[in-house]
Order: sequence, then C-alpha cells, then structure tokens
Amino acid sequence: METAAGPAGAAPGGAGVQIVDVAARDGLQSDPATLSTGAKAELIKRLIGAGVRRLEAASFVNPKRVPQMADAEELMAALPRTGGVSYIGLVMNRRGLDRALAAGVDEVNAVVVCTDTFCERNQGTTTAEALEVWSELAAEARTAGTAAGVTLAAAFGCPYEGEVPVERVAETAAEAALSGPAEIALADSIGAAVPPDVTERVGAVREAVGDGVRLRAHFHNTRNTGFANVVAAIDAGVTVIDASLGGIGGCPFAPAATGNIASEDLVYLLDRMGIETGVSLEAMCEAARWLEEALDHPVPGLLSKAGGFPQMARSRPSQ
Amino acid sequence: METAAGPAGAAPGGAGVQIVDVAARDGLQSDPATLSTGAKAELIKRLIGAGVRRLEAASFVNPKRVPQMADAEELMAALPRTGGVSYIGLVMNRRGLDRALAAGVDEVNAVVVCTDTFCERNQGTTTAEALEVWSELAAEARTAGTAAGVTLAAAFGCPYEGEVPVERVAETAAEAALSGPAEIALADSIGAAVPPDVTERVGAVREAVGDGVRLRAHFHNTRNTGFANVVAAIDAGVTVIDASLGGIGGCPFAPAATGNIASEDLVYLLDRMGIETGVSLEAMCEAARWLEEALDHPVPGLLSKAGGFPQMARSRPSQ
Repeated sequence: METAAGPAGAAPGGAGVQIVDVAARDGLQSDPATLSTGAKAELIKRLIGAGVRRLEAASFVNPKRVPQMADAEELMAALPRTGGVSYIGLVMNRRGLDRALAAGVDEVNAVVVCTDTFCERNQGTTTAEALEVWSELAAEARTAGTAAGVTLAAAFGCPYEGEVPVERVAETAAEAALSGPAEIALADSIGAAVPPDVTERVGAVREAVGDGVRLRAHFHNTRNTGFANVVAAIDAGVTVIDASLGGIGGCPFAPAATGNIASEDLVYLLDRMGIETGVSLEAMCEAARWLEEALDHPVPGLLSKAGGFPQMARSRPSQ
Repeated sequence: METAAGPAGAAPGGAGVQIVDVAARDGLQSDPATLSTGAKAELIKRLIGAGVRRLEAASFVNPKRVPQMADAEELMAALPRTGGVSYIGLVMNRRGLDRALAAGVDEVNAVVVCTDTFCERNQGTTTAEALEVWSELAAEARTAGTAAGVTLAAAFGCPYEGEVPVERVAETAAEAALSGPAEIALADSIGAAVPPDVTERVGAVREAVGDGVRLRAHFHNTRNTGFANVVAAIDAGVTVIDASLGGIGGCPFAPAATGNIASEDLVYLLDRMGIETGVSLEAMCEAARWLEEALDHPVPGLLSKAGGFPQMARSRPSQ
C-alpha cells in the first residue's frame, strides 16, 4: 500500500486534485446518528468503489471523550486492503499514535489549533504545546515508517478569539514544518473564510514552509463560501482537498449549520472545471443517498438531489 | 426615484457590488407557499430596511399561468416610495409591459432564453422570436421613459439541450444589445455553471456587446457552485448580482434542489471580501428568519443559522 508520502490517489503525482474524504471520521464524529462498525466499513468501501484513494478512517482518541470513534481498531480490521488506498488515522498523543500504528493505518494526522483558546478547549494545550506534541508524534511516526501530516485548525478564524492574524498561521506552519510533515493542512474549522483569505494564507504558509511541503485545504461550508474557497486554494497551488461525503460533520452543537464541504459536490465542481480527481460523481451520489438512509436524516450535499450536468430535465425550471 | 439607468443602489455608481434581490418575484413564484399581498409588501419593506436598493418586485404575466403573481398591481400600490429604491417588474409581452408601466414600476426586465427548446417551453417562442419581442418591449419602454433590461436565461446550460455553446450566448447578447438595454443579465437558470464558465461567458458577452452595456449575473446554487461563480463574475467585471432572500426560488418541480443564491449569504461573502454592498448582514438575517416564519418552511440560506463572523462561539466546533 502506498502512503501519503508516495503517489497514493489520483493526485498529487499527476495533474488534478486529490480528494481526501473525511466522512468516516470528521463527518461521523459530530453526526447525531451513530453508525455500526459494519456500516462504517460499508461507507468506506463505497467511497473506495467511487474512486476515493485517501480517507480519514478513524480517530484514535480517548473513547470516553469521543464515543463514536471507540471502534477504531475494529473498523481498521474490517477494512479492505486495496492497492493504492491510504487510510488516515487522527491522533492527538503518543498513546493514540501507538494505537493507530498497531491498527495498521497508512498515515497519521495530528492537529495543532492556531489559537491558544481554541487549542486549550480542543486538546488541553496551548498552540506551542500542541506543536511540541506534534514534533514528538512526527518523530515516532518516522521511526515507524508511517507518513505523518498535521492539520492547522482555526487557520482562518477562531470561534473564541475571532480574527486570527495571518502571521500567527504562518509562524505555526513554519514551526510545524520543522518536524518534516508529509503534508500540512490549513483548516477553516468554523467556515468563516472567503477566497481572498485563502489566497493570502496559502501564500503566506507556502512562503513560511518552503516548496518541499505538500499543502492540503480543509473547508467548511457553514457560510456558503466553502466551494469558492476551494477554487481559490487550487488557484493558489493546493492539490489536496478535504471533503466529506454528503457534507456530514461540522459543529455538533449547531445542527442547522452545515459543516464540511460535500465530496460529491466537490467532484461536480472539479469535473466541470476539467480538473481530474479519479472519483465518479455518479457513484458518489449513490453513496450519499445510501448514507442518508444509514444515518436516517438528510445530508447537506446537493448533487445527490440535483444530479449532474449535462442531463436532460424531467421538469421545467424557473427563469 | 432613480432607475436602473441611473445610480440607484449601492453600486454601480461607486465601488462595490449592487445586490438585486429577486425573492419577491423569482423566489416566491416557485415557492410552495403563497404569501398575501401584505406579506409580500412586508418582505420588500424589510429588504429596503436592510439596505437593498433594487428589487424584482412582481411579474406582469398571465395570472392564470402564474397565480402567485396575480396581485402585481395591488402589490405595487402597497409599496413604499423610498428615494433611491428601484422596483423591477418582469414582463414577457406588450400587455405585461403596459400593466407594469401603469402600476408604476421603475424598471422592466424581459427574458430571452438562449436555447430554442427551453425558450419555447418557457414563453412559447424561439430564441430569435423572443429577441424580437424584447426589441419591441425595449422600444416601448424607452418611449415611456422607463429603463428596460433583459435576462439571457440558460446562458450556462440548458435542461433540455444540455451544453449551450458560448457562441450562442454571445450572439444572443449581441442581438439583445442592439435594442439598447439598460442592463443585460446572464442567468445560470439551472445552476450548472462553474467559475471558468463564468469567466469565459462574461468575457465573450462583454466583447459581443461592447463596454456600454452594464452586465448583471444571476446564479443558482443548485449544485453548490453559485457563490464561487459570483467571485468569478466579479473578477470578470460584473458589478450587479441577483440573489434571493433566504435563497428561495428555483425549480418548482424539484423542491429538494436549492435555487437562487441567498442574498444574506452573498452579503457575508462580499462583506468579508471587503466589497461594499450597502446592505446590512444582520438585518438580512433577521429578514430571512421572518421569511421562514411567513412561508412556514425552512429556507436554504445559511447565514441566518450560522451567524456572521467574527462572532464569539457559544459552543465548541469540531476540528
């Protein structure tokens, strides 16, 4: 199996953009429904069947804190070992890393929140302390021969501190880059960003970390700016984009607000822009409809309702 | 009162982008709920109170075909005459134009669909015949001293014919421009466009009509590309954007698919991009919540649920 450091997925490696589907972890973690391990495995199999080659599969955190992810080991054991598919495990500390490695993940991903207040609430450390934890995790993962990436959360705005200075994000990225990440992701954790923010911050981070580190972007559609931000990120040279089947995930305490951008909607956007993803829109829409049934509630993604284009209409649209 | 040919609204006239709210006509026309004339007037008053200065107020078409718009005259009589506010009436033929002028609209807007099949189904004419009708309406409106604009529907894709050649759109625009429109709008009537389409088509139309005609863009968010398309349109020089409070409107036969981009979400996007609109996000969100109650169903717009940014969070978001 190839890892994040290698050519797993449709891109990078060729032209195009690689979609990392995060529904099984980021999506399900904050969904009101809880899927069985079998249903999670089915979700992941459907994503792979649709052409997704990198997936956030599970979180190796304290099961008391995140009960939805308590079956991480069981799920990893149930997953198919398909050539070219890379499973990402979220880890927050050494214990989680050990569990993830033992469970056979292909990559691990850590989180550093760019603001102290949010970082303390999310993982009980300051940003500086989270960077130290990341540094240790990166070293351990390297020893184990497993690719490690890091997500810089609240890179576009913080729910507690408000505006996040671009310098803060660039400095955090520069520090994170010292540990040799396979990838650095910039996350708009609360869906506040607009395209000029993306252009500015991707540029500042690229300058801070140099050309050797691959950048990934993680957008939420909370305020309907997520897909515009994707376009800006790609224009700024980002080649890996997180998205969640159905658009599930987001803030668990604000169910009316949508969270992650929907993977199937992202596939439509990139397809029509002529950007290769290796992912089938039709199969993703089918998977999204399956997911709605499995969760027993509607999902925010639009393509499974609207269908692709060109298609012939069965009814008359308005003006 | 100023008209579309004049400096009505926040833009054009200064820097910034002018939002034309179409909820009262395009939005309500295809909504499952029917608002009373009084509630429509209240909707429009709230939009004006929030800072909107151009609104599609009513449609002067056959009331048997579009019963939701049968009260067009009554509504116009109930509307406040606020300085700098311009009411647009949709007209499809001479009879509609006469009604609109008698009712005291500030501008009329006609529709020409860029594909024959869709044009036939929408208004019973080919594209060429619709252009002739537009030419006659434009001449009559000029005689009456009322600004007239035209919307080119299906300018990005057709539900019946599929792909619409860019040459077809440019030729239709060139022909429409011969009648001296105050404005030409390009409408993505089925929400199929992606940003490169917008760049290409706005450029082609600009070249076809010259610099003297103001361009407006009308996007649907059916496939979650609407706001990315707005950014592309503004980058391409468009300064007037249609949007609908709450995002109401769209295809009456596909209620699951969202239609127009939501005005309040557009205000957030433009505010954060530093683009002046003269419209208050807070007042628009309040109006959207009022609209949800008036219609007795949820609306697709997100800002009235998520709130603006920066704001302090009351709960912990996910990563």
